[in-house]
Amino acid sequence: VAKRLEKFKTTIFTQMSMLAIKHGAINLGQGFPNFDGPDFVKEAAIKAINAGKNQYARGYGVPELNSAIAERFRKDSGLQVDPEKEVTVTSGCTEAIAATILGLINPGDEVILFAPFYDSYEATLSMAGANVKAITLSPPDFSVPLEELKAAVSKNTRAIMINTPHNPTGKMFTREELEFIAALCKENDVLLFADEVYDKLAFEADHISIASLSGMYERTVTMNSLGKTFSLTGWKIGWAIAPPHLTWGVRQAHSFLTFATCTPMQAAAAAALRAPDSYYEELKRDYGAKKTLLVNGLKDAGFIVYPSSGTYFVMVDHTPFGFDNDIEFCEYLIREIGVVAIPPSVFYLNPEDGKNLVRFTFCKDDETLRAAVERMKTKL
Amino acid sequence: VAKRLEKFKTTIFTQMSMLAIKHGAINLGQGFPNFDGPDFVKEAAIKAINAGKNQYARGYGVPELNSAIAERFRKDSGLQVDPEKEVTVTSGCTEAIAATILGLINPGDEVILFAPFYDSYEATLSMAGANVKAITLSPPDFSVPLEELKAAVSKNTRAIMINTPHNPTGKMFTREELEFIAALCKENDVLLFADEVYDKLAFEADHISIASLSGMYERTVTMNSLGKTFSLTGWKIGWAIAPPHLTWGVRQAHSFLTFATCTPMQAAAAAALRAPDSYYEELKRDYGAKKTLLVNGLKDAGFIVYPSSGTYFVMVDHTPFGFDNDIEFCEYLIREIGVVAIPPSVFYLNPEDGKNLVRFTFCKDDETLRAAVERMKTKL
Ligand SMILES: CSCCC(=O)C(=O)O
Ligand SMILES: CSCCC(=O)C(=O)O
Repeated sequence: VAKRLEKFKTTIFTQMSMLAIKHGAINLGQGFPNFDGPDFVKEAAIKAINAGKNQYARGYGVPELNSAIAERFRKDSGLQVDPEKEVTVTSGCTEAIAATILGLINPGDEVILFAPFYDSYEATLSMAGANVKAITLSPPDFSVPLEELKAAVSKNTRAIMINTPHNPTGKMFTREELEFIAALCKENDVLLFADEVYDKLAFEADHISIASLSGMYERTVTMNSLGKTFSLTGWKIGWAIAPPHLTWGVRQAHSFLTFATCTPMQAAAAAALRAPDSYYEELKRDYGAKKTLLVNGLKDAGFIVYPSSGTYFVMVDHTPFGFDNDIEFCEYLIREIGVVAIPPSVFYLNPEDGKNLVRFTFCKDDETLRAAVERMKTKL
Repeated sequence: VAKRLEKFKTTIFTQMSMLAIKHGAINLGQGFPNFDGPDFVKEAAIKAINAGKNQYARGYGVPELNSAIAERFRKDSGLQVDPEKEVTVTSGCTEAIAATILGLINPGDEVILFAPFYDSYEATLSMAGANVKAITLSPPDFSVPLEELKAAVSKNTRAIMINTPHNPTGKMFTREELEFIAALCKENDVLLFADEVYDKLAFEADHISIASLSGMYERTVTMNSLGKTFSLTGWKIGWAIAPPHLTWGVRQAHSFLTFATCTPMQAAAAAALRAPDSYYEELKRDYGAKKTLLVNGLKDAGFIVYPSSGTYFVMVDHTPFGFDNDIEFCEYLIREIGVVAIPPSVFYLNPEDGKNLVRFTFCKDDETLRAAVERMKTKL
């Protein structure tokens, strides 16, 4: 294995999902729904396959999807972007992240992350030869330590990467935090990479795209995907929105990482993004109820539950149960209780910082959530 | 744009396909069929979508596809591989190439290519910080200059990358050439990356997987895809087969480039690979006829046509028409004749080496091929 990847292990999502299957445990680990995506989107995919839309797509996206993405972004953020010059379709948001980082970051560039972070951020930055600094978000509210962040920015800082709503904590960056980060970026000529795949799962406040703050669009790459919002995580349709000078770098890397993304699924994604507002409202209502169900159950089971205001994840403290760290706790949870969760210490530069925490997802049908809660309430 | 990608332009395939649309020209450039893939494969995809196979696949492939790939490789090469430990499903062969290179090549490692080469090879090696050496294959027969290759191998050489049948020349590496390369790899402890996406389009001799030569499997990554063989280039299903110690590197990079590949299309790919031998025979017969049609037409139009024994491409010399280089010739061909071809100078480290050549594809229906030939015969 190349040195750039030496320190990384099999992703925790794969490890945990395989353990779930092996032990027949209820999987509240990796964030994929155990219910299906909407029929109108599946029908659009089938229609595209039958219509013979099965050859290479244009590298940066089929025109109708680029347009639908631009249109949705305008509705959500108020920003008007050129679908032909500022939107790039990728094979999931993971590829958007890789293309953004490999397309725009040079070896030795410094990039600031907020820990805990989705594991691909650090691995991809390592592939790009970047130096990673991490600012830790701590419970109970995971707020940004503003002065610490400010002190971390140096003349080598090339980019700050945020994820809001935030996986794995459920935190949403507040307007004040986003304004502070934006000011830092503008003062220090720093790029901003924003992973917003959970934007439609914002329960307590509206999601804010940092690109929409004054002077930010020109220095921001905004990434999103179809999977979470349309319960089709396996289709792997993502995108990056950025001004032309940044889009150029993203597209160059994308051209040589995957070249293009599955054509019929792009046609279906265009149909999905044109869903009426009621679709998104219903999604949020459904997930709000699931969140309540899981959060109450976790509290009853004895966890210290931290507030989650976005995403379909909730972070808890497992220390009431007396385990040394998150890995040991999660192993016990799988083997003895029959429930899979994600140990988040792998999402920190310093694993110690996450050792008291465990992440659960509520993107499962109510019956599954109830069964998991029942197991934890009675057996933990 | 990051330095690693500075020297690369918009891929020639995208440039030429966009020009084809703009000028309403007949597209014999980028290698995608203008006919559809087989119904039984499309039906398998639809069945998978309807069956709810729409969430994240296992990162390295859905079990049934890993098995089908191993089974097909056994039939084709005689090698028995473990579908769980030696097969990785990727988002097209382009991603298999990127994952192999980023997963196994360190900055400063030397990698030997044969020019002309598919453009992603050089770009991805640049992303990995590798030093690229290229051995040029020259017309008329594009045979490997064995002594030159031998002299190019140094103690820094980490890998040799081959593509057989070879895009863009249509050359197939002979058994003697493969044996020579294999011996070099073994003597110098060099890895071998083999892109075999055109293995089913081998017209004059059987395709040979270099992994099947004595002592080679343990040092080879064999890459392939669904798109060419099943006329579904837009589905973007590829794979890499390698012994576990190399698969580890490939999978690590893959995890962070795309994480997983479109789930329902993987199910369909598994069905495709289980096609009876008659499917492959018919494919070859159809393409053989198309090749004859195009080759005869190109000769009649006045090109010097080089023999193509594999792939769906044919390389010609355009100098009888008096243009300075391939780019100028191709521009004239699009604008004045209404036919798109690929100028191959971008596939050489030194563009001068390709300036007399042009690549045409015959992966189009007969009517399209006839119309293109007619235009060239009457107007060139
Ligand atoms: C490939 S896992 C992607 C992110 C996610 O779903 C999770 O955090 O569980
Ligand atoms: C992305 S283009 C892939 C290769 C090919 O089809 C071509 O060489 O034309």
